[in-house]
Amino acid sequence: MDFAPDQRTQDLTARAREFIAGHVLPAEPELEQELAAGKEFWGAPPVIHDLRARARDAGLWNLFLPGEHGAGLSQLQYAPVAELTGYSPQLAPVAMNCAAPDSGNMEILNEFGTAAQQEEWLHPLLEARIRSAFCMTEPGVASSDASQIRTRIQRDGGDWVITGRKWWSTGAMSPDARLLIVMGVTDPEAPRHRQQSMVLVPRDAPGVQIVRPLTVFGYDDRDHGGHAEIAFDEVRVPADAILQGPGEGFAIAQARLGPGRIHHCMRALGMAERALDLVRERASARSTFGRKLADQGVLREWGAEARIQIEALRLLVLKTAWLMDTVGNRAAMTEIQAIKIAVPRAVQAVLDRAIQVFGAAGVSSDVPLAALWAGSRALRLADGPDEVHLSSLGRAEFRRPPVL
Amino acid sequence: MDFAPDQRTQDLTARAREFIAGHVLPAEPELEQELAAGKEFWGAPPVIHDLRARARDAGLWNLFLPGEHGAGLSQLQYAPVAELTGYSPQLAPVAMNCAAPDSGNMEILNEFGTAAQQEEWLHPLLEARIRSAFCMTEPGVASSDASQIRTRIQRDGGDWVITGRKWWSTGAMSPDARLLIVMGVTDPEAPRHRQQSMVLVPRDAPGVQIVRPLTVFGYDDRDHGGHAEIAFDEVRVPADAILQGPGEGFAIAQARLGPGRIHHCMRALGMAERALDLVRERASARSTFGRKLADQGVLREWGAEARIQIEALRLLVLKTAWLMDTVGNRAAMTEIQAIKIAVPRAVQAVLDRAIQVFGAAGVSSDVPLAALWAGSRALRLADGPDEVHLSSLGRAEFRRPPVL
Amino acid sequence: MDFAPDQRTQDLTARAREFIAGHVLPAEPELEQELAAGKEFWGAPPVIHDLRARARDAGLWNLFLPGEHGAGLSQLQYAPVAELTGYSPQLAPVAMNCAAPDSGNMEILNEFGTAAQQEEWLHPLLEARIRSAFCMTEPGVASSDASQIRTRIQRDGGDWVITGRKWWSTGAMSPDARLLIVMGVTDPEAPRHRQQSMVLVPRDAPGVQIVRPLTVFGYDDRDHGGHAEIAFDEVRVPADAILQGPGEGFAIAQARLGPGRIHHCMRALGMAERALDLVRERASARSTFGRKLADQGVLREWGAEARIQIEALRLLVLKTAWLMDTVGNRAAMTEIQAIKIAVPRAVQAVLDRAIQVFGAAGVSSDVPLAALWAGSRALRLADGPDEVHLSSLGRAEFRRPPVL
Amino acid sequence: MDFAPDQRTQDLTARAREFIAGHVLPAEPELEQELAAGKEFWGAPPVIHDLRARARDAGLWNLFLPGEHGAGLSQLQYAPVAELTGYSPQLAPVAMNCAAPDSGNMEILNEFGTAAQQEEWLHPLLEARIRSAFCMTEPGVASSDASQIRTRIQRDGGDWVITGRKWWSTGAMSPDARLLIVMGVTDPEAPRHRQQSMVLVPRDAPGVQIVRPLTVFGYDDRDHGGHAEIAFDEVRVPADAILQGPGEGFAIAQARLGPGRIHHCMRALGMAERALDLVRERASARSTFGRKLADQGVLREWGAEARIQIEALRLLVLKTAWLMDTVGNRAAMTEIQAIKIAVPRAVQAVLDRAIQVFGAAGVSSDVPLAALWAGSRALRLADGPDEVHLSSLGRAEFRRPPVL
Repeated sequence: MDFAPDQRTQDLTARAREFIAGHVLPAEPELEQELAAGKEFWGAPPVIHDLRARARDAGLWNLFLPGEHGAGLSQLQYAPVAELTGYSPQLAPVAMNCAAPDSGNMEILNEFGTAAQQEEWLHPLLEARIRSAFCMTEPGVASSDASQIRTRIQRDGGDWVITGRKWWSTGAMSPDARLLIVMGVTDPEAPRHRQQSMVLVPRDAPGVQIVRPLTVFGYDDRDHGGHAEIAFDEVRVPADAILQGPGEGFAIAQARLGPGRIHHCMRALGMAERALDLVRERASARSTFGRKLADQGVLREWGAEARIQIEALRLLVLKTAWLMDTVGNRAAMTEIQAIKIAVPRAVQAVLDRAIQVFGAAGVSSDVPLAALWAGSRALRLADGPDEVHLSSLGRAEFRRPPVL
Repeated sequence: MDFAPDQRTQDLTARAREFIAGHVLPAEPELEQELAAGKEFWGAPPVIHDLRARARDAGLWNLFLPGEHGAGLSQLQYAPVAELTGYSPQLAPVAMNCAAPDSGNMEILNEFGTAAQQEEWLHPLLEARIRSAFCMTEPGVASSDASQIRTRIQRDGGDWVITGRKWWSTGAMSPDARLLIVMGVTDPEAPRHRQQSMVLVPRDAPGVQIVRPLTVFGYDDRDHGGHAEIAFDEVRVPADAILQGPGEGFAIAQARLGPGRIHHCMRALGMAERALDLVRERASARSTFGRKLADQGVLREWGAEARIQIEALRLLVLKTAWLMDTVGNRAAMTEIQAIKIAVPRAVQAVLDRAIQVFGAAGVSSDVPLAALWAGSRALRLADGPDEVHLSSLGRAEFRRPPVL
Repeated sequence: MDFAPDQRTQDLTARAREFIAGHVLPAEPELEQELAAGKEFWGAPPVIHDLRARARDAGLWNLFLPGEHGAGLSQLQYAPVAELTGYSPQLAPVAMNCAAPDSGNMEILNEFGTAAQQEEWLHPLLEARIRSAFCMTEPGVASSDASQIRTRIQRDGGDWVITGRKWWSTGAMSPDARLLIVMGVTDPEAPRHRQQSMVLVPRDAPGVQIVRPLTVFGYDDRDHGGHAEIAFDEVRVPADAILQGPGEGFAIAQARLGPGRIHHCMRALGMAERALDLVRERASARSTFGRKLADQGVLREWGAEARIQIEALRLLVLKTAWLMDTVGNRAAMTEIQAIKIAVPRAVQAVLDRAIQVFGAAGVSSDVPLAALWAGSRALRLADGPDEVHLSSLGRAEFRRPPVL
Repeated sequence: MDFAPDQRTQDLTARAREFIAGHVLPAEPELEQELAAGKEFWGAPPVIHDLRARARDAGLWNLFLPGEHGAGLSQLQYAPVAELTGYSPQLAPVAMNCAAPDSGNMEILNEFGTAAQQEEWLHPLLEARIRSAFCMTEPGVASSDASQIRTRIQRDGGDWVITGRKWWSTGAMSPDARLLIVMGVTDPEAPRHRQQSMVLVPRDAPGVQIVRPLTVFGYDDRDHGGHAEIAFDEVRVPADAILQGPGEGFAIAQARLGPGRIHHCMRALGMAERALDLVRERASARSTFGRKLADQGVLREWGAEARIQIEALRLLVLKTAWLMDTVGNRAAMTEIQAIKIAVPRAVQAVLDRAIQVFGAAGVSSDVPLAALWAGSRALRLADGPDEVHLSSLGRAEFRRPPVL
């Protein structure tokens, strides 16, 4: 057992740290201004383009992606870099082309796409020429249960015809999101996990209607293309727009989930560290009732508790990454579920308390805490609410063999 | 000791219930539409006017205000009605002319205003012809410590001249908020709690600049006139625009705090009940993994915990109201502080869990939970963060005489 | 609604306060010594006798019992007195003849006993000439489900013949416990809640075997007669030893539960106040790292939280008492369940933290905190674990009508 | 970074598992009987001797001790074995001669003792021919602050003369505890951390008086020699009975603390796993209200939460062990403090909930949970209460450099 990161990890971490501290954080106010100026605009704010160029130059590009198309990092190597991007989650991941949902979409195109599909969609995504959305969750349905999907994908001659309604399609409000990866039912008579398929749908295909944006605690997340409700009304795509083939949808979705979840957790840890940095600075600068905040017992106790939680959960994330690298995503399922539950919750608690330290400013847009909070809160619902995962994890716990 | 509400309380509660169920809740979607239609508009949405008329007809008007100008209710009698208004906090309180910050402003005008001041400002407020804002909190200052106020109110001939900057002036974005009650320092040499005074400032006075709206977790609260940052640059008001006289500001602010806090708590309890009603309905209608939500152990346990918390804290609120009625606001200070800490926190926890039950819809604007959550979250910072109150309450606890 | 206690309550509370402060607390070290001296002895320590005489003189006797046999107090009137007895739960309740399980046993003899049964058992109990035990819980059975009882009570000629095994029969290790009230099955074919009956069994009846004492976290509770496991091997009692008649056992047990639970809660609140008194004294006397404990933020925050919890839950207990007095025990079931869950847990948390304040002394027998803790911990299991009650309360919550 | 244990660790773990499952657990009832039979006896129960012989044969002996005198394991290698011993903490550690306080005492004799001191005390301890106690904590003093020690160790001719009072000297009730390592003040004028020294005192030296045993939540822990209060009244030891020399006491104590704390944490994790094994077995065997416990949502959720906590904290313990091995105990101080706070608390919570699952049996001695609970509870006070460590950890947190 060895807790020291390897050389490549150390190098990349140092480079990412330099890039984010030197370029990303200083660009945050610029982003604010651009967003304030363009209230009706959902595309990428201009500041992104400059950051992307710098990230590519620094070799901080597509790091999330294993294999030849990406940087070839293991999950364990990617972890500390991904964590640092969480420090500025509106800018850093997208600047380094590692932002959800594109990263997950690139993963499945990389793993499951044909050469032609990769040529058409993966390559532009890898170069950030376009963006994409993932259309799985549906209104009125328990999204934690993939088998409840109602969108139909039916064969009609040489086409697939898609009809249904999706929501929480993150990024899809942006016109840059040229590609929608849509999950739907191709064969309702097939076994439970062989009914679904995934098709690649251009956002401008006839019959695709972007219905409305959704908000997360009042935030529209327009810098990332928001979260769309989308109606598909007899949308036609050619036969070869299907990923892998009919009935493969559920398996592809599962393959996407593991990395997606752990990457969310990594970034969430960075969000917590950002909060702790902000609190540390304020607590050293500010006094109430004649005592520096940093010297007040209640705040110290909180700082200690936050540190313990973050350290312990980071190790759990790293061990999960190591398991994914060594025994595979499926065998690491229990651990992925554990961090998916524990990390967002702990990070949310850190952010909540940090907000208290900042007083009323904490809930406003003057400090990033409230927005970070909303992001971490949403993670407790993404891919199914905590409760579903706790129940599943608990079932596994009661099926373990005894220690002795 | 007797836990039964008196007849007048029962009558008013029944009437409020009928009004809110019959008119307010059905008007909620209308409010949504009006707000969506007028994104740049900060005034009262049209739906309010109709509701106000109905509330007046039903005798549900100015119930918060004791004495002849108001309905003459005790805090204990007002409590269950106020709680019901929390069920729909965007509409019900304002419809019944019981909404903060106007209610608190009317209280101090009622208690401390001259006949002329009442004629000019209280009467229009009592009839909801105008609205008002309370300008106390300042940027860059620990707002829990009134003695840190930096805004200056200086005498210049027959005028008071106000210079300073305020923020979180709720309602002040709306042009209907004709009156700003401004706290500032008139005598920096006076004893700590005799330095401040309050003046009545027309929002359209020269030198008043509405700088910007602030957001609470992504919400701008435009239906209530938002939360403004306001600059006062040598704003002049006549000598008789002062409340009570120089040095009385702190005492007036204190007098305003007690009722303000308990009314927030009452409404917050109604917010929790709203959440429980919503959850109950969904839990009975919806199944996951083959079991009705209402039959799942984890949800049941949560429902039980929520009920216990709400019941116990409601009693604490009621006892505090009774103390305010019988021994006065000052003697009830400890209890007011206790509910100010405990109620918003508990309500927020109920709302958080209710959001989980609603899944992704819970964080959106499709159900009222996320907005209610943000409202209750902000209460943990209003009038000073919980931590300040806990410390003060703890000091009192360690100074109590022993029980035996 | 009125939160002021009536005159009789005030008088009794004052008298109880005087008695406990003046006689009970000073007797605590004496009890310690007597217990240390007689390690094999399970009867009442001598100090009890003197205290009983004083309590009777002070009119503090059988206060728990409504009606002519007792003091005729309502639950609401008894509440603050019972709370004070919790301040010294080893001595005060037994000194005032209000200790469990005798109080519950007297209640059912009072309500359900024949004149002869009352003559034989109730009168000596009311005069504390004897003590008693309640034999319901059985080993290997979910004691929260009365219908799982396996002890058989069979008719044989003019006798009832009892065979079975009971445990957690509190008090039964003491030879003073002359009476055992035993629940068992008389008719396994009857409807679920008509199968059980209760019989009055002399502890010295042939076939009664006191198997062993049980411990609660290392405590044997010998001052109260401990907790016994008892085997009944064809124990014979005459036909008229049955309470009410065959099939009435479940109903009698239910009638006993309501008062039993609320009285436990009342005393538990007194235990918390004792802890707070102890902490207050130590926190004012002791400094660490140069600061008085009472001035340290973390301790203050804890004191505040403890106070809020205790105040809120006390009100819930009082309201429950009022409901029992006004609408009856059955209609107050939900509230009884709520306090049964919430109070012991909160009190336990207060005690746990108080122990931290006392350091290693806190877990020893040098301060009463560890023993009080064990007592409150056991309450979370008495009459069924919290989890069972939470589930039942949650079911009720999801069946309530909506508020609006 | 690599989470796989090395070969030696795997081998030892397998052997320890076999020994504990095959010999220790089956010996537990024997221990119970021996303790019940000899209520006045504080020495090692006979069952220990047989287990020790088997442990030595299996090469499971003195594993805690680095260097030539011990097994030469790193902390990281020792960790999983130590965890397994926590599964049966009354028997396994003592059987393998790895039990506190002897292990810590052997560590300091090994590191700081002269050859003669080692000959006299370390060798018999390494062979378990004698046991020992550590006399540091004093009554009436904040034991978290070593500089408050009042025991005096004064030079008188060729002797050291010790006068003072100690308590919580674990093991010292046993006559086998031949050696007392006593901390006292040799020079009250020296700098704060140079005032104390440690001397080796035979338990049977004139002037040593074992005053009384202390209890932990009613447990006397007689199988481990209990916890003694000891008076030292002009106890004389020769000049060479001092460890290292005058003024070295504080440094030696500090050196002892790091390993002591992490070993406690390792064993505590094993206690939690024991609880989970017990719950798993019961939950699969038992039903309430018609559903197997293991299938009930509330229990599943708890099982999941427990698993997450234990996994995350185990990793934090392992990383701390790795830091101790690689950068030294002093540099690992923050992490040692973190686990010292977090692990006992989490383990205690697991045990508390496990007790609920076992109902009333859970608080008795019929299952080991209540005793394990008391052990973990005491850890929250050992070497200073959590609050002291939280404050210190919080101070460190606010002095860290920012991440970015």
